[in-house]
Amino acid sequence: MKYNIYCLIFFIGFYSVSQAQEIQWESIAPGIWKGTTGVPESYDLLSAANPTTKMAAIEKLGAAPFPMDKKEVTARQKDGKTYLKFPLTREEQLFGFGLNFKTVHQRGRIVRLHVDHYGGVDNGRTHAPVPFYVSDLGYGIFINSARYLDIYAGSASRLDSKDPAIARDRNTDPEWTASPYSDGVEILVPAGGVEFYLFAGPSPLEAVQRFNLFNGGGPLPPRWGLGFTQRVHRLYDQDDVISEVDEFEKRGFPLDFIGLEPGWLSKSYPNTFDWDAERFPDPAALAATLKKKGVGLNLWINPYVSPEADFYEELKPYYGSHTVWAGAVPDLSIEKARNIYWQKFKKDHIGVGVGGYKIDEVDGYDRWLWPDVAVFPSGLSAEQLRQTYGLLVQQQSAKLFREQDRRTYGLVRASNGGGVSFPYVLYNDYYNHKDFITALINSGYAGVLWTPEARASDTAEEWLRRFQTVVFSPMAMINAWASGTKPWTYPEVEEKVKAMALLRMQMMPYWYSSFAEYHFEGMPPFRGMNLEPGFEEKIQVQHRNAIDLESNPYEEALKKEIKDQYMAGPSLLVAPFFAGETSREVILPKGNWYDFYDGSYAGNGEIISITARLDQIPVFVKEGGIIPMMEPRLHAPAKGETFDLEIRHYGETPSTYLLYDDDGESFAYEKGDFSWREIKVEKDGSGKWKGTVSKAAKGKPDHIGAVSWKFMTNQ
Amino acid sequence: MKYNIYCLIFFIGFYSVSQAQEIQWESIAPGIWKGTTGVPESYDLLSAANPTTKMAAIEKLGAAPFPMDKKEVTARQKDGKTYLKFPLTREEQLFGFGLNFKTVHQRGRIVRLHVDHYGGVDNGRTHAPVPFYVSDLGYGIFINSARYLDIYAGSASRLDSKDPAIARDRNTDPEWTASPYSDGVEILVPAGGVEFYLFAGPSPLEAVQRFNLFNGGGPLPPRWGLGFTQRVHRLYDQDDVISEVDEFEKRGFPLDFIGLEPGWLSKSYPNTFDWDAERFPDPAALAATLKKKGVGLNLWINPYVSPEADFYEELKPYYGSHTVWAGAVPDLSIEKARNIYWQKFKKDHIGVGVGGYKIDEVDGYDRWLWPDVAVFPSGLSAEQLRQTYGLLVQQQSAKLFREQDRRTYGLVRASNGGGVSFPYVLYNDYYNHKDFITALINSGYAGVLWTPEARASDTAEEWLRRFQTVVFSPMAMINAWASGTKPWTYPEVEEKVKAMALLRMQMMPYWYSSFAEYHFEGMPPFRGMNLEPGFEEKIQVQHRNAIDLESNPYEEALKKEIKDQYMAGPSLLVAPFFAGETSREVILPKGNWYDFYDGSYAGNGEIISITARLDQIPVFVKEGGIIPMMEPRLHAPAKGETFDLEIRHYGETPSTYLLYDDDGESFAYEKGDFSWREIKVEKDGSGKWKGTVSKAAKGKPDHIGAVSWKFMTNQ
Repeated sequence: MKYNIYCLIFFIGFYSVSQAQEIQWESIAPGIWKGTTGVPESYDLLSAANPTTKMAAIEKLGAAPFPMDKKEVTARQKDGKTYLKFPLTREEQLFGFGLNFKTVHQRGRIVRLHVDHYGGVDNGRTHAPVPFYVSDLGYGIFINSARYLDIYAGSASRLDSKDPAIARDRNTDPEWTASPYSDGVEILVPAGGVEFYLFAGPSPLEAVQRFNLFNGGGPLPPRWGLGFTQRVHRLYDQDDVISEVDEFEKRGFPLDFIGLEPGWLSKSYPNTFDWDAERFPDPAALAATLKKKGVGLNLWINPYVSPEADFYEELKPYYGSHTVWAGAVPDLSIEKARNIYWQKFKKDHIGVGVGGYKIDEVDGYDRWLWPDVAVFPSGLSAEQLRQTYGLLVQQQSAKLFREQDRRTYGLVRASNGGGVSFPYVLYNDYYNHKDFITALINSGYAGVLWTPEARASDTAEEWLRRFQTVVFSPMAMINAWASGTKPWTYPEVEEKVKAMALLRMQMMPYWYSSFAEYHFEGMPPFRGMNLEPGFEEKIQVQHRNAIDLESNPYEEALKKEIKDQYMAGPSLLVAPFFAGETSREVILPKGNWYDFYDGSYAGNGEIISITARLDQIPVFVKEGGIIPMMEPRLHAPAKGETFDLEIRHYGETPSTYLLYDDDGESFAYEKGDFSWREIKVEKDGSGKWKGTVSKAAKGKPDHIGAVSWKFMTNQ
Repeated sequence: MKYNIYCLIFFIGFYSVSQAQEIQWESIAPGIWKGTTGVPESYDLLSAANPTTKMAAIEKLGAAPFPMDKKEVTARQKDGKTYLKFPLTREEQLFGFGLNFKTVHQRGRIVRLHVDHYGGVDNGRTHAPVPFYVSDLGYGIFINSARYLDIYAGSASRLDSKDPAIARDRNTDPEWTASPYSDGVEILVPAGGVEFYLFAGPSPLEAVQRFNLFNGGGPLPPRWGLGFTQRVHRLYDQDDVISEVDEFEKRGFPLDFIGLEPGWLSKSYPNTFDWDAERFPDPAALAATLKKKGVGLNLWINPYVSPEADFYEELKPYYGSHTVWAGAVPDLSIEKARNIYWQKFKKDHIGVGVGGYKIDEVDGYDRWLWPDVAVFPSGLSAEQLRQTYGLLVQQQSAKLFREQDRRTYGLVRASNGGGVSFPYVLYNDYYNHKDFITALINSGYAGVLWTPEARASDTAEEWLRRFQTVVFSPMAMINAWASGTKPWTYPEVEEKVKAMALLRMQMMPYWYSSFAEYHFEGMPPFRGMNLEPGFEEKIQVQHRNAIDLESNPYEEALKKEIKDQYMAGPSLLVAPFFAGETSREVILPKGNWYDFYDGSYAGNGEIISITARLDQIPVFVKEGGIIPMMEPRLHAPAKGETFDLEIRHYGETPSTYLLYDDDGESFAYEKGDFSWREIKVEKDGSGKWKGTVSKAAKGKPDHIGAVSWKFMTNQ
């Protein structure tokens, strides 16, 4: 019975090892290291998303030293769980941990990262609970696990710390605090091992860039993806859809693609994925008609299969044990399952001209999704599929369009680490305007895109204010099918709304180049101020004097952080007004900043106070900022179309800007079919400003027609 | 290398078995069965709480058949986790899953049972997340696990169900629902096995009784525990304390024990557990002085050890890896640790006359407690200690008093399954009056006690309304040290408050007997209406017509459940008013019910509407209800003291009642030193009501002086 003893040793060895483990470190690219501890699971975020690292772009960022003391990173395994610890210094600030809606600064917080509908509290349950964080000291850490992760982001104090928290007497010591100092980020991974990645800076922005490039770089949307989209009532038929499109044209509102809600389906919740024969008798004709009008088509889906779907039986071996709204859940981690599943989408939707999807309900809530007790035929746990289903549907649906050499740009309700490159924008049912802006800030730390969609509003002012932030976001979406609100619903602001909508279209060259920077360089097009050089935030501490046992039992100081201004593209700082506000403060980073609308000087490294104007969302331009704009069209330039440029320059300094160009619709750019045109603004011999645009290289895309110049600060 | 193959087989066997497992069923008492699946962990709720089952009392409840189809209970293990499923029929209703604050009906809900401060949402994070539920079909199920448990209480629909949810078209079918039918309760236990218990009825109340008796029966508080308690400002010194006590006496407000907040300690948060020499130079003298005034002493503590505590070094081998407010966390699951730890309490507190503790912060919040990544010297996980620390401190501190043959009755912030018999009442910092009453209802399904303490109020009316519910609760606590509110703070209601306080004292014989029923028969003294025979609740469904994507994206029907009336003792139905209300509805179960104050007929199996009176909390008495009352004293009768009885009878029916008596302070009752006196009310030959009280058996306690009778309905 000798083997029994060996088994026992094996058993004990596997279960009870709790001392610190060796971490295997591996340099995988300049400034990127992989750490491995224990035996990582074979299914993780990266294997689900399967990104292609942009190695050349990372190499361009250059080498960087390992940004912390390696010995201070520790790992151990016990009872099938892995415990990680990363060091923190006293004043260090942390950002990230996914798509948070109420907080930007994450130090001191505790979250359980869990794909879910956002429920009003930043507790880790969100649409993209990306296990990635960035330090203001200039590094980032990504945990590649498809499990629910418990994160103590500088909240847990260890007895054996070299720099321990100090015990104080609460009775008498005014320095007593409910949250004593913690010297580390500790993470519980419920698996016997895990791999994680460390991204060097030197700046936090460069750490984010490395993370994004590691994950394939951001998506490059088709040009039409950056125009306006409107979603129509779920029971509209195809004539209603055409009327709605015509109404946009007639009223002079831009529109690039229109979204159909569940009524396009013969049955929904769960879905047949068939067109409803009465409401949509000829989808191909509809798509063709819309195309002639310069408008694309997007379809709402959720992935759950009706027993009446024609592939229901064929897919049967691949369903999970539990249903969602009585629909079967296909295990899309299985290749055979996805081949059967997406075939229908390819044939019946994309094949008739559909340009994208809105993929709903892949996030949560718990009550409506499969439970954690569900079993899947792949053998993956319900938890692993919950954490990655959003990645799987993005990856697999995007591939369908790629196979047609057509870019897509759609909507999805869940994503996760690894999904940076997918051409999808996150959205949800939560509808707090301020929190939507905080989410926009946090999207830049998480490698995802987020739309602060306009859905409804109580007042004309709110509608306009929401519309203004939609314009300065990754997807200009009006998702007002349920409320019935149209862009022109409030006559008193109709012209202002229209002007904003046309501004979005005018700025398309700037947006498109910003996305190209995301794609090629990993620079998030929308991001938090804390990533901007020269930004200094003083977190305001407000002491509470009154003892309020209910909401603040330990009399903690309340911190007010900056979460109402953000960066858009390389040069713009956006500081929106929310309904009801008449003035606000804006923190300008160091360097001169100018008013976007009139080019006037706004300030430098200071807090300015500005007065609300209904027709403007406050936007400031960095010294030397160059903003390429086109004429105010109602539709994005189609493949092959040229457009005229009006190039704006701000400030007192000569500068350059790189304008990206390609066909705007296909993947030809991946074969080198793109151009970066240098825009140069300088003073001529007589001290007058002049600008030049470099020529596109021979045979490379050139869609630029006439060019005009506007020197905003000095005419 | 033969053994390697065996190891592999062993390994695969342990990890990958996912088919349904055999459940070993064992009958452990009449109407109680234990199910075992896989290899349960050695540390669980019952091993932490270590209750002594009241076997004789369970036998008195009699035999009962296994209340469901055994084959419908299934279990499987996979990857070190256990999955349980228990059946549900179509209309079945569920109650329990711990101390919820907003919901009573639990069917359809998803919770993760996790000891924590209640955070405003019934998601399983609460002070007593007891893994026990009761069905209206008359059975209860208890999962004996010290892990965070994920419960899908009839929310998850299985594809392979014999009675599956029906797929419907949301576009057109008005019967479509966001929550399709589910035929089971599914539970994820993160361990390789678990034991669970099934309690038969036949009624839900009997299932609860069996559960309570299995866990040792409820605590029998000392008589003084049922009187009033006041907590004083944290920085009071001993003279302040005596003045406060005198003020109660002077104003004629009852007071039985007084609680000292952290200022009694030389250092707090973390604690030395030493008396502060300046504020409390002579604790023994203070306790003696108070005792003479008929008032006991209760000390606030939390368990976390200051580096300046005199036993800090001695306890060092037994600390967890992480601190709480820079205090060390003793691993109280280790016998040596608890011997060192509690010795100090015995000597310095209980030894000088302290009668009980308020044990704070053993629940959460996550930010302030040890993290789940903490390591403990016993080898138990942070999770296991989080789930049981409240049990450990209750069990161990109660033992100290028992060793002195003195009963205690204190406060604690966390409990769990297994803790039924501990003489502790739960409380928290949340302060919603209505939700406090819902918690009182749910305490009766969880084997715990809960106090809806009065702490502060915005108006005199609110103060009075809160005070009224305190009177009809397990602990009459004024915890207003922070707000400084005294019972007499609002002169306009002072007399009404005092009358209510004296009513509490008058009813002490009723309360004491109700607790004896809890102790000896497992009957919760405070409990939900759904446990009351003849109660019929029609859950009101309110449809939302407007689409509100934000708060109700799936247009779910909203259910209004009854959570503002409850049963107190055998015969009383309490239907409190909350501040601002002028009238309310009360659902009376079948059978006649009478007004508590004047004996008038109130109704029978119907919904009545009542008008608010400031001086009364509405209370109704069951047909034949007998309420033994004593004179309105300011202090509970001490050991040996007698008291006079006024016995009230309600309704038209002759009836009997059992009055419990013992010395009220010691454990002599455990050796049989108690009596149950039969009170009998019947009509004499001339049709006049008359009552009799049986004599106590020879040598058994008898503290009853004069007896008078009040036939409330028919004088």
